[in-house]
Amino acid sequence: MDPLTRYLEENRDRFVEDLKAALRIPSVSAQPKHRDDMKRCAAHLAEELKRIGMTRAEVRPTAGHPLVYAEWLGATGKPTALVYGHYDVQPPEPLELWTTPPFEPVVRDGQLRARGAVDDKGQVYMHVKALEAHFKTHGKLPVNVKMVIEGEEEVGSENLAKYLRDARAELDADVIVVSDTAMPAPDQPALTYALRGILYTQIEVVGPRHDLHSGHFGGAVQNPANALATILTALEDGDGRITIPNFYDRVRTVSPAERAEINRIFDEKSYLAEAGAPAPWGEKGYTTAERISIRPTLDVNGMWSGYTGEGSKTVLPSLAAAKVSMRLVPDQDPREIFPKLEGYVKRLAPPGVTVKLIEMHAARPFLSDPAHPMIRAAVRALERSWTKPPVMAREGGSIPVMDTFLETHNLPCILMGFGLDDDQVHAPNEKFSLSSFFGGTRSVAYLYEELAKTS
Amino acid sequence: MDPLTRYLEENRDRFVEDLKAALRIPSVSAQPKHRDDMKRCAAHLAEELKRIGMTRAEVRPTAGHPLVYAEWLGATGKPTALVYGHYDVQPPEPLELWTTPPFEPVVRDGQLRARGAVDDKGQVYMHVKALEAHFKTHGKLPVNVKMVIEGEEEVGSENLAKYLRDARAELDADVIVVSDTAMPAPDQPALTYALRGILYTQIEVVGPRHDLHSGHFGGAVQNPANALATILTALEDGDGRITIPNFYDRVRTVSPAERAEINRIFDEKSYLAEAGAPAPWGEKGYTTAERISIRPTLDVNGMWSGYTGEGSKTVLPSLAAAKVSMRLVPDQDPREIFPKLEGYVKRLAPPGVTVKLIEMHAARPFLSDPAHPMIRAAVRALERSWTKPPVMAREGGSIPVMDTFLETHNLPCILMGFGLDDDQVHAPNEKFSLSSFFGGTRSVAYLYEELAKTS
Repeated sequence: MDPLTRYLEENRDRFVEDLKAALRIPSVSAQPKHRDDMKRCAAHLAEELKRIGMTRAEVRPTAGHPLVYAEWLGATGKPTALVYGHYDVQPPEPLELWTTPPFEPVVRDGQLRARGAVDDKGQVYMHVKALEAHFKTHGKLPVNVKMVIEGEEEVGSENLAKYLRDARAELDADVIVVSDTAMPAPDQPALTYALRGILYTQIEVVGPRHDLHSGHFGGAVQNPANALATILTALEDGDGRITIPNFYDRVRTVSPAERAEINRIFDEKSYLAEAGAPAPWGEKGYTTAERISIRPTLDVNGMWSGYTGEGSKTVLPSLAAAKVSMRLVPDQDPREIFPKLEGYVKRLAPPGVTVKLIEMHAARPFLSDPAHPMIRAAVRALERSWTKPPVMAREGGSIPVMDTFLETHNLPCILMGFGLDDDQVHAPNEKFSLSSFFGGTRSVAYLYEELAKTS
Repeated sequence: MDPLTRYLEENRDRFVEDLKAALRIPSVSAQPKHRDDMKRCAAHLAEELKRIGMTRAEVRPTAGHPLVYAEWLGATGKPTALVYGHYDVQPPEPLELWTTPPFEPVVRDGQLRARGAVDDKGQVYMHVKALEAHFKTHGKLPVNVKMVIEGEEEVGSENLAKYLRDARAELDADVIVVSDTAMPAPDQPALTYALRGILYTQIEVVGPRHDLHSGHFGGAVQNPANALATILTALEDGDGRITIPNFYDRVRTVSPAERAEINRIFDEKSYLAEAGAPAPWGEKGYTTAERISIRPTLDVNGMWSGYTGEGSKTVLPSLAAAKVSMRLVPDQDPREIFPKLEGYVKRLAPPGVTVKLIEMHAARPFLSDPAHPMIRAAVRALERSWTKPPVMAREGGSIPVMDTFLETHNLPCILMGFGLDDDQVHAPNEKFSLSSFFGGTRSVAYLYEELAKTS
């Protein structure tokens, strides 16, 4: 066993303890009450990066939550990797569904449970620990590394774009590396070459000026909740197709060979078991694997109107709202879709209500070339770590920041993630399998070695 | 001016202060945190009834919130009126929309503003003060009076039925009097001869076992929020007709003469101004006045699913729910409608979700004979008080307790209420016009005199 690999093996338990310390900080970017926790988490991360050997490791303020920048540039003549991750997490609510508190990490049956365990603190720590292993065993890194760990990924990365523009030269690199994706099975690594884009909106339907008594006014003026239901229903036809006019215009047709590969590596049975859903459902003419990779989808993420407390209240609500998001595929562009949706929703609104569409966040879909030398280096790193080649995957989720990065730094991107479908990402009881954490850390350590060979 | 009328005039300001004291008690029956306030309010009312001269005035416990029973039976040979009212109020939420705190009553521009001002504490106090006036000016009442003031009207009067059955003999009477309805304009009294019934339900749509990441699972398993929207949309057709099979089977056809009278006394312009709605909407083939009186209606009263907090969360919810109520007209029966709705909703549910329908509360519609001598006595009392005859009205709302009362005490019912359309009943900034309060108190005082003449 080489010294690097041995170091990674011998320090497993401490790596978990170090990650736990970061998970204890409730860095929920969406909730203003956690503003100080965000600062604390950024400072914690910068200190750790400094401690392991990065020459610079700084908290950089933004108009929102701060980000962490770190670098080590001592590998003259070798490529520079720009590593991206995020230290912010999704809100933990509903709290009552957690079996242990979300910010008190515990290991049970080889699973580390906490909010942020896999998305994305755990995956950021794979890099931190891989870098530590290189510094401790060789006193240096095989490539140059620049890291940007932001605090606003879960709320749309609003302030990252400005930072990337302002720091364009400082962040110059040869390849972008992101670990925020998943692998299809605990022993099967994956390299993601495509991500879906997203358009996340809020639809607000406003009716009467104030809530009314449903006995006096119900059935005589338009009810915004009924109107919203009508609008939401009309966004899809009975075959699971989205009815926004011209929505599919720029959707690329995928080759039969690529569709076959997507279906080959997909296990529908275990997917449905993870979902806890009795049956698949979706766009007619496509398999489940295709629906979540090469096809755009639309979902209501949240919905509220009127009285939602205990018991009953005979009210005709003055407002009804829904959070509605679409996953987009190449070459759809959220900037084109938004006005189409807005016009459509306004036309769908029945008389007597007004409708407002708000854009919450957006990202274009991403697709990279699997044959690029940097991507091939990542394939080799994964094969060394897992003793089998990775599947080349299209991921159903979105990493909005990819869109932002590619606008300022048009580089090849390695999306090398180690989440599993049952990790409860964005849900109660989020966890990270320790075998993924250790295998991922080893993969990242090898990646830095393999990237050095491309020069 | 006769002594009774003079007493009512001279004590106006104190009547308002006494009512304010009752309004300060937050007797919100739907919210468990107000349980003690409910007891306090019942005790307060019983004390006041004792103080004015009722021979008995007692707080009676029930399995839920207590009720108040009071009586004075000294008018030998005269009819007995059974007066019903309620001291509980609707939840005040959303609190941020109140211009003054809901349980700190204030008078401004002749309007008394507080939760419960008109529904129903203010209207209960018209009776309390009318009775006080008789006791103070004549030392007695012109008729026998039994009062039942309950604390669960806003949550379905669940425990009243048992009380009415248990106390059937004690509550024996000649006429039921209820003041919980409205008048069409500040100078136009009304006597309500019909009420719509109600069926209030909760629809719960359950999908995946837990919330899922919409990027990984959206568009591949059924989304309960989308499914709920589909179900709600399907409950009505494009013409505002309710599509529950056989829903209209028992709806009585109303004569052209009665429809003409309903339309004659209705002012659509001021009605829409009160609603704060830009345009009327409703069942095709009927006017606004008809839609809220002689036709059944269906409304979403509340709706919730997924993430409803600030910002965005890319979640596929595991649950979506709606509170849906129907107003029913003679001879519809909620006990017949419920299974029809339940079967229909379950058939509407798309595959991949399960649907549960919960009955929250129900009441049959009510229709009485405008020619009954007791009703005619009420017409005379209103005419004396307001110097013009009342309109004979069908009310769009429901008083579920009427259904309960008529099951044990099948008596003529006088529905004599003094609310106004702009009273914000069940909404923020509920108020009671003082001119309605004073005119109503006088009307009730005269009613007791006129009822005495029927013997």
